[in-house]
Amino acid sequence: MIYLDNAATTRPDEGSVREAMRYIGEDFFNPSAMYKEGFAVHKRMDEARKNILTNIADPSKFDLVFTSCGSEADNQAVFSCARRGNFVTTEGEHAAIYQAAAELARRGVEVRFAKLDRYGGADEEDLLRLVDEKTSLVSVIHVNNETGAVNDIASVAKRVKAKNPRTFFHSDGVQAFGKIPFRMTGEIDFYSVSAHKIGGVRGAGALVRNKAKNLFPFVFGGGQESGYRSGTENTFAIMQFEAAARKKFRTLTEDLDRVKSFNGLFRRELDGKIFAILSAENASPYILSVSARGLRGEVLLHMLNDRGVLVGTGSACSSKNRYSRVILACGADERTADGVLRISFSAATTEEECREAVSIINACAGELAERTR
Amino acid sequence: MIYLDNAATTRPDEGSVREAMRYIGEDFFNPSAMYKEGFAVHKRMDEARKNILTNIADPSKFDLVFTSCGSEADNQAVFSCARRGNFVTTEGEHAAIYQAAAELARRGVEVRFAKLDRYGGADEEDLLRLVDEKTSLVSVIHVNNETGAVNDIASVAKRVKAKNPRTFFHSDGVQAFGKIPFRMTGEIDFYSVSAHKIGGVRGAGALVRNKAKNLFPFVFGGGQESGYRSGTENTFAIMQFEAAARKKFRTLTEDLDRVKSFNGLFRRELDGKIFAILSAENASPYILSVSARGLRGEVLLHMLNDRGVLVGTGSACSSKNRYSRVILACGADERTADGVLRISFSAATTEEECREAVSIINACAGELAERTR
Repeated sequence: MIYLDNAATTRPDEGSVREAMRYIGEDFFNPSAMYKEGFAVHKRMDEARKNILTNIADPSKFDLVFTSCGSEADNQAVFSCARRGNFVTTEGEHAAIYQAAAELARRGVEVRFAKLDRYGGADEEDLLRLVDEKTSLVSVIHVNNETGAVNDIASVAKRVKAKNPRTFFHSDGVQAFGKIPFRMTGEIDFYSVSAHKIGGVRGAGALVRNKAKNLFPFVFGGGQESGYRSGTENTFAIMQFEAAARKKFRTLTEDLDRVKSFNGLFRRELDGKIFAILSAENASPYILSVSARGLRGEVLLHMLNDRGVLVGTGSACSSKNRYSRVILACGADERTADGVLRISFSAATTEEECREAVSIINACAGELAERTR
Repeated sequence: MIYLDNAATTRPDEGSVREAMRYIGEDFFNPSAMYKEGFAVHKRMDEARKNILTNIADPSKFDLVFTSCGSEADNQAVFSCARRGNFVTTEGEHAAIYQAAAELARRGVEVRFAKLDRYGGADEEDLLRLVDEKTSLVSVIHVNNETGAVNDIASVAKRVKAKNPRTFFHSDGVQAFGKIPFRMTGEIDFYSVSAHKIGGVRGAGALVRNKAKNLFPFVFGGGQESGYRSGTENTFAIMQFEAAARKKFRTLTEDLDRVKSFNGLFRRELDGKIFAILSAENASPYILSVSARGLRGEVLLHMLNDRGVLVGTGSACSSKNRYSRVILACGADERTADGVLRISFSAATTEEECREAVSIINACAGELAERTR
């Protein structure tokens, strides 16, 4: 099996799982318990919090709230910050922002969507134009989960704040964290990350928060996570996240170079008569969106599945719709949108796998084109 | 170490963990993925859903929404159902309901609290009196997490519906599920459960739902869990929950008898000159609340900790307050509330542990009484 759907979820890193198993075993205690075994787990969890945070931010200026997943972190940022006025975001957001925005609209908050360029990046000028004195929150995805388009969120945040300093700025960093070099700047207030896209298990995400900016609780209860997120902490998932992140950040640059070479290999070797490359040259190399225009991506996906190659079509999260709304928002026609495959890599992907996958993809697409003709 | 804080969290059942590890290993796939490996995990997850549900409900009438924890399930029920009019609940709720109610009050929904009897059970007559034509939701905890008081929720729900058939009825079943015999009745609309109180890992809870009653999404996004709870599913925690629940329900009656005998042992053997028993005779035997009146429960807890006995004081979730609001609502004075220990059992507790713990608790309390005098 050649797994090239790492943007949907990654195989949890085995060493990190082994390391964290003690929090399901001998150190299973509730971190809120008042005996020393509980305190010790709580202390370790706070170390994990700081260690994860330090990878992308100065812990004297930023804090990190553990959530159960990236979608929850996105929802918390949106429902916490966009309580009045208008909410400015983009057509290229993950469903966790896009559907939260739809809910905001139902609640009477005006939602404004900035256009995308043809690669799925946010149109910065269009976005800036939408920000006004009533904008309570701007949210711009860092790396688009379908095309890999990288938005320069530090620059956007700076320009947003110059236009309205009271506006909150949030970014969904789920496909960026641990993959592309990044540090939180003073203008980015909130940033969502997730463990399971970088070798972590599911059950842990986080919302990074500028300490000067307040957040509204999302789950009310026992007051865990400084009251921002109640519920007994998933210490296994949190410590495993820490270990997976430590490993991923240590090799971020080498991984990036290697994944770039894989991405380049697909760009060069995929049959140009069948496939159009949708991702920009400067997109995150972890995600490559291509389209076998005129063929059905879904059918191709199943053929590849039978040959042992696993890829995605658009986002795994919104696989119920035939056409990806993001790909359409890039200006693609329906024939292009119908033929989309999302090929996504991880640090564990090998060159040999990529060579084999390219040849299988070309062969299957060739067969399908033949059949369709 | 003798672990008697199982109401805070239980040690995850090792066999169930081993069984579910494949969803972190070879079957790590995203259940929303469109290749057959993704479908297979999705199918297994739906089997787990049905298997967990069938333990307490007829799957033709009820459905089950996986959440990340019990607190989230409680919050979803409250914020989903109590959107207008008034919300009737009790003074004996877990913080996840109590703090959600406080938030509702801030949003302008009237919240009405029914009184407790001296054992922490809801005063059914007082509760019924509070229900009127404007009551949108009634929520009554099934087993109180501090005293073990069991509320007859089937009876309460029936009487609530007789008074106002449009009122939703919810119960927090976190301390009841897998521990005391129970089946969902037609008058109970929603019921919260959690994995980690019955040998499950953290990361999985669920909201059981009467299929005829609609629910509002809690996390918006990719539309997982029929749109009620978005976010990539924590398949490891879900399958481990299934396995742990299967085991727990299989031995529910034997476990209950054994835990009853442990509970009786503490009632008989704890030094009556020091300890008052706060839990009712007919409380869930899994939880025994006692008070060393005039002594500080927290100090006693630390002494016991040094001697290897782990117990709680009130709820682990609200350990920031000196006095438990629930114990005070039972009519206890501050001296009684100050001396509370919560002793809570699991299927894994042994009689030998209980005998040893009783003698250590008596010795420590005796020493502390001596010192305090």
